[in-house]
Amino acid sequence: MTDPHRPRTPLLDRVRDPRDLKRLTDAQLRQLADELRAETISAVSVTGGHLGAGLGVVELTVALHAVFDAPRDRIVWDVGHQAYPHKILTGRRDRIRTLRQKDGLSGFTKRSESVFDPFGAAHSSTSISAALGFAVARDLGAEPPDHAGLGDCVAVIGDGSISAGQAYEALNNAGHLGTRMFVILNDNEMSIAPPVGAMSAYLMRLYAGAPFQDLRAAAKAAADFLPEPLREGAKRAKDALKHLAVGHGTLFDELGFSYVGPVDGHDMESLLGVLRTVKARATGPVLIHAITKKGKGYAPAEAARDRGHGVNKFDVVTGAQAKVPSNAPAYTSVFADALIRSAAKDRSIVAVTAAMPDGTGLSKFMDRFADRCFDVGIAEQHAVTFAAGMAAGGLRPFCAIYSTFLQRGYDQVVHDVAIQRLPVRFAIDRAGLVGADGATHAGAFDVAFLANLPGFVVMAAADEAELARMVVTAAAHDDGPIAFRFPRGEGVGVEINWEAPPLEIGRGRVVRTGSGVALLSFGTRLQEALKAAEALEARGIGPTVADARFAKPLDRDLILDLAQRHEVLITIEEGAVGGFGSQVAQLLAEEGVFDRGLRFRSMTLPDTFIDHASPRDMYAAAGLNSEDIERKVLEVLGAQVLGKRA
Amino acid sequence: MTDPHRPRTPLLDRVRDPRDLKRLTDAQLRQLADELRAETISAVSVTGGHLGAGLGVVELTVALHAVFDAPRDRIVWDVGHQAYPHKILTGRRDRIRTLRQKDGLSGFTKRSESVFDPFGAAHSSTSISAALGFAVARDLGAEPPDHAGLGDCVAVIGDGSISAGQAYEALNNAGHLGTRMFVILNDNEMSIAPPVGAMSAYLMRLYAGAPFQDLRAAAKAAADFLPEPLREGAKRAKDALKHLAVGHGTLFDELGFSYVGPVDGHDMESLLGVLRTVKARATGPVLIHAITKKGKGYAPAEAARDRGHGVNKFDVVTGAQAKVPSNAPAYTSVFADALIRSAAKDRSIVAVTAAMPDGTGLSKFMDRFADRCFDVGIAEQHAVTFAAGMAAGGLRPFCAIYSTFLQRGYDQVVHDVAIQRLPVRFAIDRAGLVGADGATHAGAFDVAFLANLPGFVVMAAADEAELARMVVTAAAHDDGPIAFRFPRGEGVGVEINWEAPPLEIGRGRVVRTGSGVALLSFGTRLQEALKAAEALEARGIGPTVADARFAKPLDRDLILDLAQRHEVLITIEEGAVGGFGSQVAQLLAEEGVFDRGLRFRSMTLPDTFIDHASPRDMYAAAGLNSEDIERKVLEVLGAQVLGKRA
Repeated sequence: MTDPHRPRTPLLDRVRDPRDLKRLTDAQLRQLADELRAETISAVSVTGGHLGAGLGVVELTVALHAVFDAPRDRIVWDVGHQAYPHKILTGRRDRIRTLRQKDGLSGFTKRSESVFDPFGAAHSSTSISAALGFAVARDLGAEPPDHAGLGDCVAVIGDGSISAGQAYEALNNAGHLGTRMFVILNDNEMSIAPPVGAMSAYLMRLYAGAPFQDLRAAAKAAADFLPEPLREGAKRAKDALKHLAVGHGTLFDELGFSYVGPVDGHDMESLLGVLRTVKARATGPVLIHAITKKGKGYAPAEAARDRGHGVNKFDVVTGAQAKVPSNAPAYTSVFADALIRSAAKDRSIVAVTAAMPDGTGLSKFMDRFADRCFDVGIAEQHAVTFAAGMAAGGLRPFCAIYSTFLQRGYDQVVHDVAIQRLPVRFAIDRAGLVGADGATHAGAFDVAFLANLPGFVVMAAADEAELARMVVTAAAHDDGPIAFRFPRGEGVGVEINWEAPPLEIGRGRVVRTGSGVALLSFGTRLQEALKAAEALEARGIGPTVADARFAKPLDRDLILDLAQRHEVLITIEEGAVGGFGSQVAQLLAEEGVFDRGLRFRSMTLPDTFIDHASPRDMYAAAGLNSEDIERKVLEVLGAQVLGKRA
Repeated sequence: MTDPHRPRTPLLDRVRDPRDLKRLTDAQLRQLADELRAETISAVSVTGGHLGAGLGVVELTVALHAVFDAPRDRIVWDVGHQAYPHKILTGRRDRIRTLRQKDGLSGFTKRSESVFDPFGAAHSSTSISAALGFAVARDLGAEPPDHAGLGDCVAVIGDGSISAGQAYEALNNAGHLGTRMFVILNDNEMSIAPPVGAMSAYLMRLYAGAPFQDLRAAAKAAADFLPEPLREGAKRAKDALKHLAVGHGTLFDELGFSYVGPVDGHDMESLLGVLRTVKARATGPVLIHAITKKGKGYAPAEAARDRGHGVNKFDVVTGAQAKVPSNAPAYTSVFADALIRSAAKDRSIVAVTAAMPDGTGLSKFMDRFADRCFDVGIAEQHAVTFAAGMAAGGLRPFCAIYSTFLQRGYDQVVHDVAIQRLPVRFAIDRAGLVGADGATHAGAFDVAFLANLPGFVVMAAADEAELARMVVTAAAHDDGPIAFRFPRGEGVGVEINWEAPPLEIGRGRVVRTGSGVALLSFGTRLQEALKAAEALEARGIGPTVADARFAKPLDRDLILDLAQRHEVLITIEEGAVGGFGSQVAQLLAEEGVFDRGLRFRSMTLPDTFIDHASPRDMYAAAGLNSEDIERKVLEVLGAQVLGKRA
């Protein structure tokens, strides 16, 4: 620890796990928080990742671990991207500079990583449900598989996350069950983007109406004068805790929680007082409303528009982030530009995002067409049906949701969009493997769960020019739902013809004409297929390479022609089994193509969840890079030779 | 209309569409409601279907159509099972006795059925999202495809439905946007089952604390004395409406809605007064809290435990329902019995339902193990993650959710269960086609969306004995998630061995040994496959018939053996492409089986949404009955003959 680039952390150096916090005085805990903040900044400056969220909960992390007894007490961090300080305190400090790197620590909480992560996350708004599950298991006397026991259950959830339907469902159930559990509402007035929705406005009013300066005294009074823990039920618990609750009659009270707060989430004394009191007194569900500041204590993060939500590696002194060299525009940006061009010509085009205006590129669209862009908050279910309602009303909605988050709105896609054949356009970003965000953010299943919906059109862009054209195609398609998927990251550098006409629905293209072997790609693996074809050419094998463009409707003519003219047909996609390759197999089977023999293979994502790494490493793990395609062709041809010999 | 079995309905007989209501006095509207109630009872006595919900909204239906101007004003019924009276008033009376019958009216709202159904439904809690979509389309000057114009947007949603996360997401967004729209909260203190959750308790407190006797006067006062419609924004609208709002400072107020009520939903004068006033005055979102009684006005429904939620044909005078003759126990009941037997031996077994204790059979389990059964309300997202939390805490949760509703918790299945490999047991009832509830309730996609999740075990029961054994198998499986699916309706009448040991994971069985043709069934089509085999035997073709039991992991040995020993291999399943057959095709491709030729076909649900009819008719439409299997075999063998000739 004599590295001059590392902060001085004498107290933190003595912390091996949270039990060590029990020996520290409150003043030392304050100091520990400062050291933990410095260490977090130092680590993320090396790795990049989520910075602002962790900095906002440094005091909360220390206070929680000082008051509660993890791992027996179960602290469930919602999303988990704010858990870097927690990881540092729970035995993972030695690996904290491997965050989000291949074989390193996950950027989220993860059960397989530590007993101190009782429930993994990455998508938002699951923590209350999970914590309630632990609480019920405790009440029923269950023995958890990690043998750490079951004590108190604490969910830490942000104000952005609590606006999602699942969080409300969980509050509703927890308030009904009435068992002891804690929800820490970490209110930093930010999700990834500035907050939206009536709930955010409500939380702000709670905060504005009730300054928290005298909570320290109240906490002390409650701790000193109340009798031993009350066991007479939630009603009495509420009475016991009301000394702490400044904002009575809140929405949370109505849902059966004792509301405590608001409390200054950066004031260690307040936090310790409140947490010790609720721990000593609560018999039912308690919600503690902590006001924090995203990016707290690091000026460059505090000053950033997104409060340092996600950063590249950076210089700790200046906050200057490393620039990632780029030769081509990001797919996200091409999507946004294409949509803006279409929207400039067509007033009926509107856009919907679920709390991701920057991630989806729609913030550009919003700047231009403020009244035609809707950020509904973390609310994918509503986003999809809302878009369906707008389509029924005659608008042309583009619903821009990452592949992995569209899973949240799946029933709405089926029930409100597909069954009603409403022309909602789905712009599915982050389709395929995504890199540092890992398995939880992989866009692996969208083709499978969309391509078997009657009446859907499902496209994948092979490059940025294709993406721009698919935006135009989707805009022009009023006869039912249409989706187009594209990956994270930058394009391949091809020129974009912004004036290209819409694609013919269900028509693919041959990109390279060869013989013997046909590679049929769906999506951006086309480039890898072409590379594989080049390499095979050198071996005297000259494959045909085609871009399917559509998983639905399939280009039957193209596919049957490829099958007829080649001995080997291999489909390639960035998705799980059940998607494009399965649709092709169904067609080939139904047409009797397999009856007479065809060396058919379908290259998909493998049947494993692939851990975070660089996208290229992840595709290597998935076996979907050009070398893998080349190897597959040789293997199939090898089998052919063997077959002939037999 | 001289049929003595039909009620006398002189006023209703003069109503062709809602415009005819404008000519009636308030007193006549009251009488019309009585006639509409009698006609609804009469119609459902002939067809069976959802009775209690419609009877509860008769006055509301009349009042809405008297005050608003459909189809220009968009009335969106949540779920839509309460819309029979609405259908009678909107030009569908002549077909009302075809409800839920083949080629008859849908039991839900449906866009393709009438311009007066602006948004179809069947799953709950989508109406506010859809109505907000229409409102935004109106605000942006869109031209709807039905050319009916865009006026006021009204969502009618029950107290059960509003407890779902999506409804909250929509309220949150509507409150934020602040545009004029109406939500009628139809509070009958019932979803399908008695209400659960803190929200229900809250609504009851609102109601109990504010009797509605003086709302008529208030409505009149508001209508008489307020100035012309206010246009100064939501704040002023609230002021204008506060004469109507007894329960100020409500949760809905906090979310940006003007709360009006509670109002007696069976008092026509109150309803008309309130609706006329809000229509004249509102500038922002308004929530009208109407208290109704499910089954209102029909004693047998009012007296029933479920308030006549879903009924068979019945005798109008006595209320006695026709009994459906049954030779075998329903799958639902076998599941419940098997689970109770397992739970009696294993204290760690718990059960979760999302507002369907009766439908899933868990009410029996609840009677026996009250503290181990959790009805979380209409909240599938929470249900899944809550179960995952319980599994992480060491319990053995069975999450019993219909196939179609599991779509609501899909992301949670992926993110909280599969990625974490937590042993949650999914009991998937209503898998396959379901009959009268139609396309929206079909369980078509679960195999496809589960079988490509790494680490999942996916089973389908071929009969009730298999189902009982799969419950035991799931209970014993602690190594990751496991699901078993079974259809609506009764079993095939085989004997159940309740003491059978767990199945070996990933092992199918040959049920009939033959040659030439192999039929590989996944699920209850096994009976149809066996029937087809018998019929084919008579033609000299003696197929092998196998029951795969597992879509994941596949029984590789069995499948490859079938492929090797037969010229024809046909998979059969009650699900869409992407499921079992696609998994088999992937295996066969990967193993090079197609290289040397195999007459492989995969019989799945077709690429259409199949309208309501009897299950057998629906399977005929799907082409999955024994005759279809027989025809498919002959067709494939015919192709073989042709192939030989060529």
